[in-house]
Order: sequence, then C-alpha cells, then structure tokens
Amino acid sequence: MKQFVVIGLGRFGSSVATTLAENGYDVLAIDKNADRVQALADQVTHAVEADATDEDALKTLGVRNFDVAVVSIGDDVSANILCTLILKELNVPYVIVKAPDKLHGKVLTKIGADRVVYPERDMGARIAHNLISSNVLDYIEFAPDYGVIEIIAADKMVGKTLKELELRSRFNVNVMAIKRGEDLHISPGADDKVLEGDRLVVMGKNESLDQIKNYGS
Amino acid sequence: MKQFVVIGLGRFGSSVATTLAENGYDVLAIDKNADRVQALADQVTHAVEADATDEDALKTLGVRNFDVAVVSIGDDVSANILCTLILKELNVPYVIVKAPDKLHGKVLTKIGADRVVYPERDMGARIAHNLISSNVLDYIEFAPDYGVIEIIAADKMVGKTLKELELRSRFNVNVMAIKRGEDLHISPGADDKVLEGDRLVVMGKNESLDQIKNYGS
Ligand SMILES: Nc1ncnc2c1ncn2[C@@H]1O[C@H](COP(=O)(O)OP(=O)(O)OP(=O)(O)O)[C@@H](O)[C@H]1O
Ligand SMILES: Nc1ncnc2c1ncn2[C@@H]1O[C@H](COP(=O)(O)OP(=O)(O)OP(=O)(O)O)[C@@H](O)[C@H]1O
Ligand SMILES: [Ca+2]
Ligand SMILES: [Ca+2]
Ligand SMILES: [Ca+2]
Ligand SMILES: [Ca+2]
Repeated sequence: MKQFVVIGLGRFGSSVATTLAENGYDVLAIDKNADRVQALADQVTHAVEADATDEDALKTLGVRNFDVAVVSIGDDVSANILCTLILKELNVPYVIVKAPDKLHGKVLTKIGADRVVYPERDMGARIAHNLISSNVLDYIEFAPDYGVIEIIAADKMVGKTLKELELRSRFNVNVMAIKRGEDLHISPGADDKVLEGDRLVVMGKNESLDQIKNYGS
Repeated sequence: MKQFVVIGLGRFGSSVATTLAENGYDVLAIDKNADRVQALADQVTHAVEADATDEDALKTLGVRNFDVAVVSIGDDVSANILCTLILKELNVPYVIVKAPDKLHGKVLTKIGADRVVYPERDMGARIAHNLISSNVLDYIEFAPDYGVIEIIAADKMVGKTLKELELRSRFNVNVMAIKRGEDLHISPGADDKVLEGDRLVVMGKNESLDQIKNYGS
C-alpha cells in the first residue's frame, strides 16, 4: 500500500492529508507551524512539526521511503521550490506540488516536480462556468474542450423521453444521469421521461454544451 | 446578459474574473491592492481599486446593479463577512463567497450568502482520490457518494468489447467515454473494443468505483 507525505498544511494540504487518511492510507503530515500540526494530529498516521526546507530534518523523518509527496507551502514560493528539490534528490518517486501561478509551475517542473497543480485557478474557472448560465448548476472540465454540465431540464424537455428529445443526434451530447430530488439515476435509457424539476447531467464538447444550455431560452 | 462583480483578486478571484470576461461577460473587478487591480486591468471590463468593506465605495461603484457578486477576500475573514453583508443589503441577487472553512461558511450562509465555496478543500479531496490508485488518472466528485474516474484499461480488459466486460451488471458502473491517444470517444457502444493503453472514463457510486479500480490488480 502506498505511503504518502504531505508537506504544508494549509487548506489544500490538510484536505489532501485527511482524505488520504480517511481512505485508510498511511500519511505523514509536516508543517513548521505547531498549530497546524496539532489540528491534524488525530486524523493522520503521524503529524510532525518540521521545516521542510531543512534537508536533514526531512532525512531524519525518513521521507525518502515514501512513494508520493504532496507539497503545498502556500505563498512561500522559495520554500516550495527548495522543498521539491530536496524531495527529488532524496528520490521520492512522485512529487506533486501546488503552485501559485504558471511561472512558478514551470520552475517546479524544471527542477523535477512530477505534477504541478493550481487549485484556486482551476476552481475559479469551474465556478465561472457554473455562473455563466443560470440553468447550469455545475460544470466540470473533463478533457481539453470537453465538459460535463448539470442543467435544469428546460420546459420544452418536460414530458418527453430521451429518445424523443434526440439530444445525441441534435447536439452531439450524452445524458449521463438524471437527478430527481435526492435520487440520481445513472445512465438513463431511451424511454426514460424527463419530469419537471429534473436536472440532467450532460457530457459533450464545450461548444455542444453551449448549445444545449441555450436550448430552453 | 448577466453582469458580474468580482471582489478580491487572489488566484481564485482572478481566475473567476478572467474566465467570465473571456466568455464575453461584463466584469467589474475590485481589490484594495493596486497591483492586483493593475494585473487584471486589460482583461476585464473595469478593474477598480477600492475597499470592499466600505459601503459608500460599493454604492458609488453601482454594485447594486449587478446580478452576481463573487467575494474572495482570502484570509481576512471579517472583511469577507462584512462585504457579503453589504452586498446582500444592497440587494445583489446572487452572492457567492469563498470561505476558509466550514465554520465561516455557516456564518456566511446565515448572513445571506447564496452559495459558499471551498476551492482548496474540494481540490485537495479530488487530488487525494487521484493519488490513491495509480491507475486512476482523475477523480471528480459528482454528487454525494458518486464520482467519475478515469482509469487505465487493465490488461484483463484489453481486447474485449464493453458488452463482454459487463461492467454495468458486474460493478454497476457506466463507461462514459474511452480516451485513446488524443481522441475522446463519447458514449461508446456495447460492441466497442478496449485497446491497450485506452483510458476509460467511468461513472458510478464511490464504492463501485473502488471495486473497478482494483479490478486489474
Ligand atoms: N518551510 C516550511 N516548512 C514547513 N511548512 C511550511 C514552511 N513554510 C510554510 N509552511 C506551511 O505551509 C502552509 C502554507 O499554507 P498557507 O495558508 O500559507 O498557504 P495557502 O496557499 O493560503 O494555502 P491554502 O490556500 O491551501 O490554504 C502553512 O501551514 C505554513 O506553516
Ligand atoms: N477589504 C478589502 N477590499 C478589497 N479587497 C481586499 C480587501 N481585503 C483583502 N482584499 C484582497 O483580497 C485578495 C485576497 O487574496 P489573498 O491572496 O490574500 O487570499 P487567498 O485566500 O490566498 O486567495 P487565493 O487562495 O485565491 O490566492 C487580495 O488581493 C487582497 O488585496
Ligand atoms: Ca492560508
Ligand atoms: Ca494568496
Ligand atoms: Ca493564502
Ligand atoms: Ca489559497
């Protein structure tokens, strides 16, 4: 079973650490701030106060034996970079780093980061897409140019079956699920009828999704 | 067409503002920091330096005429709350606020925030799920208990059609798409064959997804 070390316990790092631990994985959580360490102490395998730019400290903690390191040292970009460098020198196989922006992301990749993530930017784009159309409840980018949206069924759709709506041939989109109240109906069939208040989860190219978003209006 | 005001131009707020603007929407971007305002000046309709806890300043900017406000004043929680309060008093119909944690999220909801978001926490959980299984390339939470994962086709699957694999009846999951190289094949049919190196995009309950993740190993 893989072992994880999470360095920097801001909102992002803490969420990574607790989610891994909840799923039964070994997690070593490191922060230089004692309060942040304390907050996670009961939730992960080990929570330790240490400076992640101190190579000896990381060696002593046995970081080289971990399979995956997640680094998110927030706004202290130089510490983020230095820590990543040390982890790769210690031969940690997979190091994933939260970067503040593309420029630092490039630097992190150059020095060996295996994956760079931009949580605030990605979630900002996702929420913006949600907001653009009032009948769109959620949007997830799925692949470049492809997304999944959740829309409120337009009046025109209500009472018709999926076959009658022909969304596939007309818009080149795929209805993955119908949400009805608390129920989620996965992969509905051609004869399933859309009811008032249903939310449809639809996948397709972004341009096709734009069309279906405007279908009702 | 809806008009948006974005207050607080950290990574999250900036990403919301530029994504909306790229999609052709009117965006008023506000921050008390002149550099942050300057950085967005060319990318949004208006970028203005102002203190978002100053009710008169917000009135003067005509904030009451906007349809949607997005507030993300980072770690200054009291400013986040005060600004949200002012916006709801000015009758902005939809106010969405980035919160640092659940506790502040509750306060924000109580004082009228229409939606509270936790970008770092949500992305942390998403990345943790990605990391847990090495054949899982991506995980998206879709509804409580439901997710979408992208997995590398297990050796056992290669050469078989979707019908032969019977993933639906055996695991109660739904193959939404097959990724092959740069191609994305949406809603594959029963006779589509899985090839070596294919990535399958699969939707289902989290417990079903856990089973299929381990199918190959
Ligand atoms: N050299 C270091 N060694 C260990 N931990 C560090 C070091 N430098 C900073 N940290 C820790 O990294 C964490 C970074 O979180 P911080 O809140 O500053 O960033 P952030 O980008 O706002 O994070 P988030 O957006 O995920 O909340 C803090 O808990 C801080 O104590
Ligand atoms: N009273 C205020 N009025 C307007 N803007 C404010 C006010 N207080 C703070 N801000 C701005 O809000 C922004 C918050 O971003 P900051 O980087 O501090 O938070 P953050 O949570 O780390 O954001 P992100 O994670 O999205 O980068 C800053 O640009 C700051 O200037
Ligand atoms: Ca922080
Ligand atoms: Ca910041
Ligand atoms: Ca911060
Ligand atoms: Ca942040």
